Amino acid sequence: MSSSDIFLGETIGTAVLILLGGGVCAAVTLKSSKARGAGWLAITFGWGFAVMTAVYMTASLSGAHLNPAVTVGIAVKTGEWGDVPVYVAGQMLGAMIGAALVWVAYYGQFLAHLTDPETVGDKPIEGPGPVLGIFSTGPEIRNTWQNLATEIIGTVVLVLAVLTQGLNDSGKGLGVLGALITAFVVVSIGLSLGGPTGYAINPARDLGPRIVHALLPLPNKGGSDWSYAWIPVVGPLVGGALAAGIYKLAFA
Amino acid sequence: MSSSDIFLGETIGTAVLILLGGGVCAAVTLKSSKARGAGWLAITFGWGFAVMTAVYMTASLSGAHLNPAVTVGIAVKTGEWGDVPVYVAGQMLGAMIGAALVWVAYYGQFLAHLTDPETVGDKPIEGPGPVLGIFSTGPEIRNTWQNLATEIIGTVVLVLAVLTQGLNDSGKGLGVLGALITAFVVVSIGLSLGGPTGYAINPARDLGPRIVHALLPLPNKGGSDWSYAWIPVVGPLVGGALAAGIYKLAFA
Amino acid sequence: MSSSDIFLGETIGTAVLILLGGGVCAAVTLKSSKARGAGWLAITFGWGFAVMTAVYMTASLSGAHLNPAVTVGIAVKTGEWGDVPVYVAGQMLGAMIGAALVWVAYYGQFLAHLTDPETVGDKPIEGPGPVLGIFSTGPEIRNTWQNLATEIIGTVVLVLAVLTQGLNDSGKGLGVLGALITAFVVVSIGLSLGGPTGYAINPARDLGPRIVHALLPLPNKGGSDWSYAWIPVVGPLVGGALAAGIYKLAFA
Amino acid sequence: MSSSDIFLGETIGTAVLILLGGGVCAAVTLKSSKARGAGWLAITFGWGFAVMTAVYMTASLSGAHLNPAVTVGIAVKTGEWGDVPVYVAGQMLGAMIGAALVWVAYYGQFLAHLTDPETVGDKPIEGPGPVLGIFSTGPEIRNTWQNLATEIIGTVVLVLAVLTQGLNDSGKGLGVLGALITAFVVVSIGLSLGGPTGYAINPARDLGPRIVHALLPLPNKGGSDWSYAWIPVVGPLVGGALAAGIYKLAFA
Repeated sequence: MSSSDIFLGETIGTAVLILLGGGVCAAVTLKSSKARGAGWLAITFGWGFAVMTAVYMTASLSGAHLNPAVTVGIAVKTGEWGDVPVYVAGQMLGAMIGAALVWVAYYGQFLAHLTDPETVGDKPIEGPGPVLGIFSTGPEIRNTWQNLATEIIGTVVLVLAVLTQGLNDSGKGLGVLGALITAFVVVSIGLSLGGPTGYAINPARDLGPRIVHALLPLPNKGGSDWSYAWIPVVGPLVGGALAAGIYKLAFA
Repeated sequence: MSSSDIFLGETIGTAVLILLGGGVCAAVTLKSSKARGAGWLAITFGWGFAVMTAVYMTASLSGAHLNPAVTVGIAVKTGEWGDVPVYVAGQMLGAMIGAALVWVAYYGQFLAHLTDPETVGDKPIEGPGPVLGIFSTGPEIRNTWQNLATEIIGTVVLVLAVLTQGLNDSGKGLGVLGALITAFVVVSIGLSLGGPTGYAINPARDLGPRIVHALLPLPNKGGSDWSYAWIPVVGPLVGGALAAGIYKLAFA
Repeated sequence: MSSSDIFLGETIGTAVLILLGGGVCAAVTLKSSKARGAGWLAITFGWGFAVMTAVYMTASLSGAHLNPAVTVGIAVKTGEWGDVPVYVAGQMLGAMIGAALVWVAYYGQFLAHLTDPETVGDKPIEGPGPVLGIFSTGPEIRNTWQNLATEIIGTVVLVLAVLTQGLNDSGKGLGVLGALITAFVVVSIGLSLGGPTGYAINPARDLGPRIVHALLPLPNKGGSDWSYAWIPVVGPLVGGALAAGIYKLAFA
Repeated sequence: MSSSDIFLGETIGTAVLILLGGGVCAAVTLKSSKARGAGWLAITFGWGFAVMTAVYMTASLSGAHLNPAVTVGIAVKTGEWGDVPVYVAGQMLGAMIGAALVWVAYYGQFLAHLTDPETVGDKPIEGPGPVLGIFSTGPEIRNTWQNLATEIIGTVVLVLAVLTQGLNDSGKGLGVLGALITAFVVVSIGLSLGGPTGYAINPARDLGPRIVHALLPLPNKGGSDWSYAWIPVVGPLVGGALAAGIYKLAFA
């Protein structure tokens, strides 16, 4: 794969991933969305099918890593680090494009939600918290070591599933069925390990949209919670490397 | 493929698509339906499996486009426009037949819903609005440019997924697994991008049933919202062409 | 396939189908079930996966029709009627065994539900109606022609999907992926066309368990609604034959 | 397969199975989890995809039985019992590791849930009961014979589905699609037969986490319900052997 194909594939693929993944969070969260309140099953299947769609679309260009933790896991496994910067650059750019597209698709919903919040009694039931949640993850209970551990465990499951599938062997990326299986692995991680931190399990998925949240001219958007931002970056990277270590010990 | 096979396949396929897709909207919306209130997940999976069933059934006849935006996207990609009118004619006829079959299957439910609405306090909780929603899409917030943008973005995802699958190369249409993947791409678009406009992403799916809504002798059915009707036609056509452009730039 | 393999396969397969399909209705309906109130999505996926499991298990023995409407559709398509009585006998016996196994698995739940109903105010929220619904289907609005039409339409979709898959060509029945696709076709019919009558779309699925309901020593079980019983037998048989006719006209 | 590969595969696989399966129960049950109240569909799909992920990951090492009932069923079918102790030892160790990892991932949620229960009026709505349910199964109605019967019936469906797939023939374990089908068989058993006892259908899945529940330093955790513990061990083992018997009679 050429560097330009890798960059293009990862940019398009991660943009689609975040458009659809951030989109389902917007759909379920925002006022005046038909999907409002559709719940956790909708969010977890939404993210899973987002991965499937993006992987299926771009596997032939770049192998469809779409996640620096996957890229690092594969690099640790193979010992080849040369393309890693190109992969990560595409992933970060794509994640930011995807987050901006969510804003376009839900433009009126964001405005209505932030400028005219519904109230129960006199307490608004919307506000900046859930809106940041459309872009980036955040913990229910703020505890550095647990939050890191949860992100590491979730990412180990994801990357070990990718590595043991031998899905990146051919240079053509995931096969048709591999994209589907990976989608359901992501649904599984969301359903089972998403409760404490919202399962970033992907540094680009969390950091790219957080930057976009900081830059967008959203009224009353609140802060971007930068104090937490390193955990969904470091946790998944550690998890990806750890998965590769487990792979080399147990499966190679 | 002969023109008669294309016409037959698209007519049967789009009829099945709209029967099942409109059917799930009826099932979830109408009074005296066992599925009433089953929610957004039911609607999105219902439409996804409607696509799967229709594609699987008719792929061998016509390649199962079932959507003028897909037909236009493929025509832009290949440069072959000769069969486009036959495809679109079959799709429009099929969509109208499908919408009429929804009316047959839910005949008593439509009557009960429209002539004997339930009330909360003295406010009816049903009415013509939701009934039109069984046939055609409508925006939660009426904003021409956002509504167009949302339909374009959703259709780009759909048609780019179809084009990058190389699913229409063989003349036999989608393979077994391709039908399943396409189904989940449609579920994904519904979950993630359906909130603002109800994701037509298919001009025939929206316009054909809207015509049937205007013609059917439903009591108290209200208007067919013709002022909005051009957006789910133009948006998806633009999205289909745009997806083909992206395909030619990035993937070809 | 020998007659004994056909009989054995259809008996085991239809027993598993009804055990799992009736089971999900019991799970969602009965008092003291962990799944109580899980809703229409649970019921439709439950029936879909019931079909998948049963088909996958017994396809190598009998081709896994598991439904007289499918058997009739295939007979009309092929003109071979010789094995039809063996198929239908196995299907009816299997459906009765499956319904009895639901009663075993949910024995305590049936008793608690029927002998100690919960009340809202002084109105019991359980009763014989929902319990019959665990065994057999019934309409929300009793209208012979609409009920027949809905069952015919649903069965046409099912049997046309089976016939166009060429799934019964090999004598070995459905392939792995065919079982999955068929499962989702059944989920689709449930979500989209199940609202008015509860989608029998299978005479054995409805009549066999209705007989078991009439025979079982359940307290306070109420009547078995025999006046409706012919509709989910005749409707699906007509639908199966009609699907074969459409197949021969459009696809053969 | 070497004994060390079998042990390693079953340990890793069952750990992943219980991490994800116990995880979804924690996610849906515990206070301060984003998935709280996501319901029975989330639990059943969560367990199904847990099986898929674990099987897919470890099939190449050990064939991915991950369940003593499957191991016994295959041993009865093939007459080869030599590796059974290695399989079961790996399964038990893995189940205990997985349960401990659930505790790590949901550490703060367990603490908040058990030390600061929410109340409705003055009645706590959490307590040790649901927390034990994250580790092990328990019946809604305590009735030895029905509880045993329900576990036996559920396990017969599971093991017969595994055996009839011929999925363990190659020594390489389940194929890609087999993992997916098995996942949906498990979802099906959960939806349809999980209501009375919570569908252990796997002795290691129930006993391993119960031991961990007894050992973990959870405050206010309550008892581990040892009087019930033999039923989800004996029932599934009987079911696995029975399935193998049915297989030999009807399918071999």
